[in-house]
Amino acid sequence: MLVIMRSDATPVQVNNVIALIEQMGCQTHLSQGENRALIGVIGNGDALSADRIRQMGGVEKTVPVQKPFKRASREFHPEDTIVPVGDLRIGGNKIVLMAGPCAVEGRDAFLETAQHVKTSGAHMLRGGAFKPRTSPYSFQGMGEAGLRILAEARRETGLPVVTEVMDPELVPLVTSYADVLQIGARNMQNFALLHAAGRAQRPVLLKRGMMSTIEELLMAAEYILSHGNERVILCERGIRTFEPYTRNTVDINAVPLLKQLTHLPVIVDPSHGTGKRELVTPIARASIAAGADGLIVEVHAHPETALSDGAQSLPPEQFTELVDSVGAVAAAVGRSL
Amino acid sequence: MLVIMRSDATPVQVNNVIALIEQMGCQTHLSQGENRALIGVIGNGDALSADRIRQMGGVEKTVPVQKPFKRASREFHPEDTIVPVGDLRIGGNKIVLMAGPCAVEGRDAFLETAQHVKTSGAHMLRGGAFKPRTSPYSFQGMGEAGLRILAEARRETGLPVVTEVMDPELVPLVTSYADVLQIGARNMQNFALLHAAGRAQRPVLLKRGMMSTIEELLMAAEYILSHGNERVILCERGIRTFEPYTRNTVDINAVPLLKQLTHLPVIVDPSHGTGKRELVTPIARASIAAGADGLIVEVHAHPETALSDGAQSLPPEQFTELVDSVGAVAAAVGRSL
Amino acid sequence: MLVIMRSDATPVQVNNVIALIEQMGCQTHLSQGENRALIGVIGNGDALSADRIRQMGGVEKTVPVQKPFKRASREFHPEDTIVPVGDLRIGGNKIVLMAGPCAVEGRDAFLETAQHVKTSGAHMLRGGAFKPRTSPYSFQGMGEAGLRILAEARRETGLPVVTEVMDPELVPLVTSYADVLQIGARNMQNFALLHAAGRAQRPVLLKRGMMSTIEELLMAAEYILSHGNERVILCERGIRTFEPYTRNTVDINAVPLLKQLTHLPVIVDPSHGTGKRELVTPIARASIAAGADGLIVEVHAHPETALSDGAQSLPPEQFTELVDSVGAVAAAVGRSL
Amino acid sequence: MLVIMRSDATPVQVNNVIALIEQMGCQTHLSQGENRALIGVIGNGDALSADRIRQMGGVEKTVPVQKPFKRASREFHPEDTIVPVGDLRIGGNKIVLMAGPCAVEGRDAFLETAQHVKTSGAHMLRGGAFKPRTSPYSFQGMGEAGLRILAEARRETGLPVVTEVMDPELVPLVTSYADVLQIGARNMQNFALLHAAGRAQRPVLLKRGMMSTIEELLMAAEYILSHGNERVILCERGIRTFEPYTRNTVDINAVPLLKQLTHLPVIVDPSHGTGKRELVTPIARASIAAGADGLIVEVHAHPETALSDGAQSLPPEQFTELVDSVGAVAAAVGRSL
Repeated sequence: MLVIMRSDATPVQVNNVIALIEQMGCQTHLSQGENRALIGVIGNGDALSADRIRQMGGVEKTVPVQKPFKRASREFHPEDTIVPVGDLRIGGNKIVLMAGPCAVEGRDAFLETAQHVKTSGAHMLRGGAFKPRTSPYSFQGMGEAGLRILAEARRETGLPVVTEVMDPELVPLVTSYADVLQIGARNMQNFALLHAAGRAQRPVLLKRGMMSTIEELLMAAEYILSHGNERVILCERGIRTFEPYTRNTVDINAVPLLKQLTHLPVIVDPSHGTGKRELVTPIARASIAAGADGLIVEVHAHPETALSDGAQSLPPEQFTELVDSVGAVAAAVGRSL
Repeated sequence: MLVIMRSDATPVQVNNVIALIEQMGCQTHLSQGENRALIGVIGNGDALSADRIRQMGGVEKTVPVQKPFKRASREFHPEDTIVPVGDLRIGGNKIVLMAGPCAVEGRDAFLETAQHVKTSGAHMLRGGAFKPRTSPYSFQGMGEAGLRILAEARRETGLPVVTEVMDPELVPLVTSYADVLQIGARNMQNFALLHAAGRAQRPVLLKRGMMSTIEELLMAAEYILSHGNERVILCERGIRTFEPYTRNTVDINAVPLLKQLTHLPVIVDPSHGTGKRELVTPIARASIAAGADGLIVEVHAHPETALSDGAQSLPPEQFTELVDSVGAVAAAVGRSL
Repeated sequence: MLVIMRSDATPVQVNNVIALIEQMGCQTHLSQGENRALIGVIGNGDALSADRIRQMGGVEKTVPVQKPFKRASREFHPEDTIVPVGDLRIGGNKIVLMAGPCAVEGRDAFLETAQHVKTSGAHMLRGGAFKPRTSPYSFQGMGEAGLRILAEARRETGLPVVTEVMDPELVPLVTSYADVLQIGARNMQNFALLHAAGRAQRPVLLKRGMMSTIEELLMAAEYILSHGNERVILCERGIRTFEPYTRNTVDINAVPLLKQLTHLPVIVDPSHGTGKRELVTPIARASIAAGADGLIVEVHAHPETALSDGAQSLPPEQFTELVDSVGAVAAAVGRSL
Repeated sequence: MLVIMRSDATPVQVNNVIALIEQMGCQTHLSQGENRALIGVIGNGDALSADRIRQMGGVEKTVPVQKPFKRASREFHPEDTIVPVGDLRIGGNKIVLMAGPCAVEGRDAFLETAQHVKTSGAHMLRGGAFKPRTSPYSFQGMGEAGLRILAEARRETGLPVVTEVMDPELVPLVTSYADVLQIGARNMQNFALLHAAGRAQRPVLLKRGMMSTIEELLMAAEYILSHGNERVILCERGIRTFEPYTRNTVDINAVPLLKQLTHLPVIVDPSHGTGKRELVTPIARASIAAGADGLIVEVHAHPETALSDGAQSLPPEQFTELVDSVGAVAAAVGRSL
């Protein structure tokens, strides 16, 4: 950390700052410029002390030098983390495709979609039993009945299952059915839930909040990692911008940036990210071209009857085209499905 | 709801949409323009059906005509809701001032600040026992020990207490100590928590998410109201924009807009909203000038020792100035402290 | 400026950076931490050199220490600048009210509105003869005929006139009619226009771009000031955010922040900023409560016939109420109309 | 256009709105619902009338049904527009690569870079002679001397040249040297410049403003097209969001969306869009995977000496890798370099 003093700071103020930093167990290095003093902090100056230092007389601002994430950082852990889910390896050379409807809405429809996506080449099933909905009057998901359908689909297809959990109390229940726990965008900073997911010792798919920075995403991962649960998969799913033509703006830039900053696998959700069916396949291709390790795509055997998010679900034949198209791009960047 | 058909929609597609809407129990009104057909939906077309309709062949988009919030709406409930907290009335002619440190960090310091803010004219105490922090390595709050200090400060000062709850499981515990439950910005769409707060039958201070629209705030309130808990206080606390000079951008526009859209009281948090001590008083004045019913302000007897958010906390003497300054503006708009 | 080296930078890389900085005529101060080296630059390190330094091997980032604006800075010029316009003084204790229709649409209507706003207490007239419109198919303004009407209204009312100029070539023409040149939000970084306005030696009302930072606004002012034209009035008029209920989000926080950073007068446009007539008066009051030096408000004698922006124009009787209401708030903050 | 009346609108108000619309030469279609009336407008209801209608008593809002852009619309012109530049065809099956330094900084360096990018496979040269800079104290470009160097590089390499013009007065000068006129992001709504570029009858590369919606970009194109100049190339170059780790957020979603909405060619600038050299190639690949027709990339023979934007410029050998990498992705989506 660096402390930048105001141009009108007095020598006493400079000395007070130095004294406080040294009290906290760090060393300092004073740089006296023509206009102002700069104090370099050597040692483990954490966020806490920055808050205190910014309070002191004569301080203009503090500048962090080190990134605040540790366990998630590639500096700390240079090799790619590969998250095993059954026989799958997420984060390796092979691209992982997760597919299924937004919500589990009924047994027969879900099993039909599950068979379709398996046939098309998906490696995992997705489907929500608990749904975060803006309105209390919208369909909220089937709950445990939905989890049982997910488990049945896993038995029938052999594909592992990812599903969302929204309530820390329900983490044990969802863990008893799901292979991967999903933490949705609205819950990215639900810290009680992050702690519960960390304790669950199950792979976690952590979605970026729609107005969360990349650093906040990595700090949220840090909550899970701090429980010793290393199996975290990050997911870019669109951020909120001023552009009204798309529901969100998928931040493809986040993909190569995350791959540099962290060792964790990074996937993209082109369905929620755009909210428009006709953009899903181009954005899926772009994600892989930018270096993503996988995709999570909404597919619905009969999107016109979907109870939620039908407008962005692909019908099975379009998902098949997506798989082909993504496979060609994967090959172009030296990877495979 | 209105359905706007594409310019190349066929008559069969138009008829299919009309048939589906009528199956859902609504009436339709077809408007055939030169370029395209418009279908007005008469009756209770909810969000669910909009999703299905947008899937159908030939549909370009749907346009909501009614606002999605009901119990929170001023159309539904024209008179201002006044939330009683002990002898206080939040939402009436008198402006309510809530003040205290960001976090409860110790008994003596909290009691000292509590006495200060009471003397300066605050009507309620604030202080966090459970703190949402971006980093798992930052101070997370004192937990129940902090709640006990809050209760002691209430006994000593006679002021009611508002404090944050982050975990649905802890709602009963926090309710046993606090007069008002606070739901923080990061949890505005933590639906499990909203349900728990609705069931608690205790006043709730609901902060706008820093990434949430005004409509989403009102829909979050709707979750609480849907449990028959009418005592919801809305709080604008700054939204995230591209501007780096402030931590967030307090959206003062939201104040008069919310006062038009809803009957619920609206207060402003100028401390978190700006993140800069020297902006707190000007933004506090602006909030009251714009029609806010109250303020929640961070005050710390010794801000330079605060464990969190010291940079935006007012020392007691500046809070006293804020109270005077806000009182003058309140009088200018026909209200009082 | 500070240069933060990467943790894996070699001593040779550190020395190369130091050598380059010293070649540029600055001194350096090396701070060797446990993990990395920091190099403080002493002297006049401008933006240019930062770009070159960031290119060098081993450099992680550079951190500016001084603000990039100079002539606009309050550090450079501590006293408030007061911009004289005829007998008016903009930036002093008295609040300045500018009012009139969005566009000059015809002689009689403009003169009628001008008389109304004068009677209500406005100090200056506003009205666009050249209109920036998103669509080439929308009304583009009356051009020089509109300027002549403005001049006639000035003769009739005695009020000075502010009007927008969009093309550097037209600066002399607009200067021959107007007391204050307005540079609109879309042209805040039209550098050819800023240079032309700087050379005009006429007061300039510079509107903040709707997605421009406060620093960029001050840098745009710097373009005008660099021609020795000190008469710049800054105007906050709403920024673009994700919130759809208002056209823009008026950034009231910018008012006290600008008053700290710069000596230039700061006014607010609550009409364009909100796009909603019913928000204009509350936001006008909030602006003055936050410390603004004036307001620019759209008023139209017959808003229902306006060719542009009628939805946000106040009819004359509502403007009279605004003046009363703003006057009361001005008195509460120790100022007057 | 649709007019949605308030739920408390009177029959007289409804009739007044209908009467005004019919006076404007349009027909109406009234849809009387349980709660409110809806009025469909049949015929050419333009933006102007919407403004007037929103003023009328009883009107809640108006909803546009048709897109406001016409000549740029794919509905109006279904086939892809191909812009010829010398022997190049921009917008066809072949991907077009434009490359060169941000600014022309001197003859020898520019010629050296020009030879490098030609050898690597670029089809056009880029380089700015007039530079829009946030600060008046930064390098502003070489002006006409820079244009002469561009012309010399064209003669030596045979590659056509694109360069920015910022001032309408300078359009004839720049046209006399350049094959394609570039309008930069800050000038996307500089309407005087758009008119001048429309009149120039020269291909125009129009960059999306960093604060501009896709619809506003297409409306800006409409200004140029309205002069009968059909040779417009659109360029996505990053929008401003809350994310601080990148300079801007390249909106890859805009690529497939624009390809659906318009017949004009669409290219991407991954250099300005990200501001980080290490993101340029991944985002270049993603752009092509998403359907872009070309790229404009900053390349500098010696980026460490660049006077502007060196941090995002690729050295020649990295540009060669980009070309190879983009070529593989182009082949995967059925296109070629």
